[in-house]
Amino acid sequence: MNFDRHHLLGMEGLTREEIETILTTAESLKEISFRDIKKVPTLRGKTVVNFFHEPSTRTRTSFEIAAKRLSADTVSLSANTSSLVKGETLVDTARNLEAMNPDVIVIRHSMAGAPHLLSRMTKPSIINAGDGMHEHPTQALLDLLTIREKKGRIEGLQVAIIGDIAHSRVARSNIIGLKTMGAEVMVAGPPTMIPPFIESLDVGVTSRIQEAVAWADVIMMLRVQLERQQQMLFPSLREYSRFFGLNLETMNKAKRDVIIMHPGPINRGVEIHPEVADGPYSVILDQVTNGVAVRMALLYLLLGGKKSEMAD
Amino acid sequence: MNFDRHHLLGMEGLTREEIETILTTAESLKEISFRDIKKVPTLRGKTVVNFFHEPSTRTRTSFEIAAKRLSADTVSLSANTSSLVKGETLVDTARNLEAMNPDVIVIRHSMAGAPHLLSRMTKPSIINAGDGMHEHPTQALLDLLTIREKKGRIEGLQVAIIGDIAHSRVARSNIIGLKTMGAEVMVAGPPTMIPPFIESLDVGVTSRIQEAVAWADVIMMLRVQLERQQQMLFPSLREYSRFFGLNLETMNKAKRDVIIMHPGPINRGVEIHPEVADGPYSVILDQVTNGVAVRMALLYLLLGGKKSEMAD
Amino acid sequence: MNFDRHHLLGMEGLTREEIETILTTAESLKEISFRDIKKVPTLRGKTVVNFFHEPSTRTRTSFEIAAKRLSADTVSLSANTSSLVKGETLVDTARNLEAMNPDVIVIRHSMAGAPHLLSRMTKPSIINAGDGMHEHPTQALLDLLTIREKKGRIEGLQVAIIGDIAHSRVARSNIIGLKTMGAEVMVAGPPTMIPPFIESLDVGVTSRIQEAVAWADVIMMLRVQLERQQQMLFPSLREYSRFFGLNLETMNKAKRDVIIMHPGPINRGVEIHPEVADGPYSVILDQVTNGVAVRMALLYLLLGGKKSEMAD
Repeated sequence: MNFDRHHLLGMEGLTREEIETILTTAESLKEISFRDIKKVPTLRGKTVVNFFHEPSTRTRTSFEIAAKRLSADTVSLSANTSSLVKGETLVDTARNLEAMNPDVIVIRHSMAGAPHLLSRMTKPSIINAGDGMHEHPTQALLDLLTIREKKGRIEGLQVAIIGDIAHSRVARSNIIGLKTMGAEVMVAGPPTMIPPFIESLDVGVTSRIQEAVAWADVIMMLRVQLERQQQMLFPSLREYSRFFGLNLETMNKAKRDVIIMHPGPINRGVEIHPEVADGPYSVILDQVTNGVAVRMALLYLLLGGKKSEMAD
Repeated sequence: MNFDRHHLLGMEGLTREEIETILTTAESLKEISFRDIKKVPTLRGKTVVNFFHEPSTRTRTSFEIAAKRLSADTVSLSANTSSLVKGETLVDTARNLEAMNPDVIVIRHSMAGAPHLLSRMTKPSIINAGDGMHEHPTQALLDLLTIREKKGRIEGLQVAIIGDIAHSRVARSNIIGLKTMGAEVMVAGPPTMIPPFIESLDVGVTSRIQEAVAWADVIMMLRVQLERQQQMLFPSLREYSRFFGLNLETMNKAKRDVIIMHPGPINRGVEIHPEVADGPYSVILDQVTNGVAVRMALLYLLLGGKKSEMAD
Repeated sequence: MNFDRHHLLGMEGLTREEIETILTTAESLKEISFRDIKKVPTLRGKTVVNFFHEPSTRTRTSFEIAAKRLSADTVSLSANTSSLVKGETLVDTARNLEAMNPDVIVIRHSMAGAPHLLSRMTKPSIINAGDGMHEHPTQALLDLLTIREKKGRIEGLQVAIIGDIAHSRVARSNIIGLKTMGAEVMVAGPPTMIPPFIESLDVGVTSRIQEAVAWADVIMMLRVQLERQQQMLFPSLREYSRFFGLNLETMNKAKRDVIIMHPGPINRGVEIHPEVADGPYSVILDQVTNGVAVRMALLYLLLGGKKSEMAD
């Protein structure tokens, strides 16, 4: 194994070997969640702080469960209960947390670069759980794990990412991770949702979902941020759904062994139709299960755990 | 012992033998909370998710303490921090939780039938912690435990339930449980708060609190939902208190060995007067203590624990 | 060691010997937070309830981490999730919590005297985590620990407390604690922020920050409660900062070995300027680290732990 990083800030900069170490570690930790006693003593006496400035079910819960299954102690702070309401700066809050000697701070923040800022100011390991429209690396890693698990490999696969590419940290982290692992990527979405200079990332582009679906071994649907709809990136949800929603008709052109992914939470009937989300190609819930495994792996690797400690 | 259910959705359908198993298990687990070290390793490595869509102190805290005293890991989600704010459906949120391999999901929801819906869609054990105006079975079970503890039996006792019967899940679950256990039930309240067809449940009805109080071995007062007062089910709180509040004068007609129960939180001076709530007949705080014991018993029974594991 | 109290309600009434026992215990527990495995089994099976009615990052988190490092179970209630939204009284909520057999209730409340009230009504140990404008004893104790650690002693030191003395529970608890330990205290602030009869506490008073700074071995800056500014205790933040903010110019007159303290969260550029908060005299983050140690010591002492149990 080859992993001596202290933080996980983004997919940017991770080597292929590092990603493979994370995925392989996650695969070996995954079975703990299927045991009768879902707990190993590996991280006993470690303190993991979940510091979330944006609402989240699955990511916060996933980190909390991952930490607890490794026997770490967890403390959760959300924006509305923290001193931020009193006007303290992010860095001051983080330094204060640091002074309580946590081992890891998991941070989600609306400001791009917030985790990077903290990593330069504080000693504990920082894990980026989503920073603005920048990166969401643990999502990309759980997606990569799911692809490797379902398809047996990542290299050479054709992956279509469909939706609001321009504003999605999930898309950005996945593009970086997929390219690093040797996959081909095509993005599809309305022109207002395709970032300029996207071709410079060596990524194909189309405005026709049919083209992307027909080409893909893996389809990643992005969530429509309903809360952002007032920006009028597209005329109406109905129109978005008609042109960019994944439904049974669109799926007619897909490969037989395609898999369909979505970072959740899904908007049924908007970007993905129920018969597809719940259908045989969907691996959406496998992604959630792999999320716990990937987060266990990261906590384990960042805290320098030793393999021998993992037995219970 | 005889208990092989996977869920606890309501009092409806529980047999007398099953209820007795729960109560007896609760009685034997209760003493753990009075030890110096209030913890047994029985449910180590189990994950209990508390998923609460309505505010609650005692129920959520009670479940959390119950789980921790059995060494289970707990994760709490409330409506305002969950993805529900992003428009995800209840079933999708539950399936996502399920994908993280919890052993139990404890759910409180404003929609009647929400726990039943989840129990049909997901694998973990579902415990109903209150669903709309439908059921609140752990409240009924802790009430039954308290009655059995204080009166030595349930069968044949005369139990008066006083207040807003029509809109109370506590009343509903208690009526079902009490009848199953062989008690007699009389309900009392203003006519607007008595559900139609109540007699079909083989329950007595009166609109005079004095009649119910004089008849009862056990008096269960219901909470006035102040937040529902705008529906004008009664003219004013003052009037409600005068006609249906339990005070010392009303208690004059009660039996000498009556016990007074309330599911809490109490509205002092509305449905119950302080001198009664804090008086010698009140077992309100015993109910809270028994709440922890009943929830420990349910977690233990649903997760199939073995008696021999309970020693510390 | 000499400590047989059941509650920690305030600095008022604590003897010098008791304070020294707390500080010495905290010093010995502090190193646990610097171990690789930051956890001892001392309070396994104890239940600590954090009951916070006002927002707080550091105090709640500090108590939660302190409890977990001693292996206690923790449950957190905040005002908005508790039954208080349903109109229950504080005493009823506390009695309900008590009925679940916690060992300690840590309470922060906007009402002065709330912890004292609870301590008379309930059995568990009560720790005051801040009550209105009355006391904040764990803050004073962590401040005393920091002073003793940095200066080698408390007796005979000259301590300046600067800011809104009249409305600060931190100031009040510190004045009592410092006087008990034999320090000299001078307070400085605008006349509207100096309480009447302050001299009766045997405390010096000045309205010139320069005088206080030049005199002090220890400078404690108080937080400006921005949310209270509408009361017009001073004309503007800019004016406050100019006359009572600690900046490099004011520090010119300070002793060479002075230390600067602040209870946090700091308002950068208001009561303290960044170059001072982050400068060499600042011990602000040491205070936070000592906060965990002091809270561990209190939990340990109140629950009557034995020294021999502290080994891991």
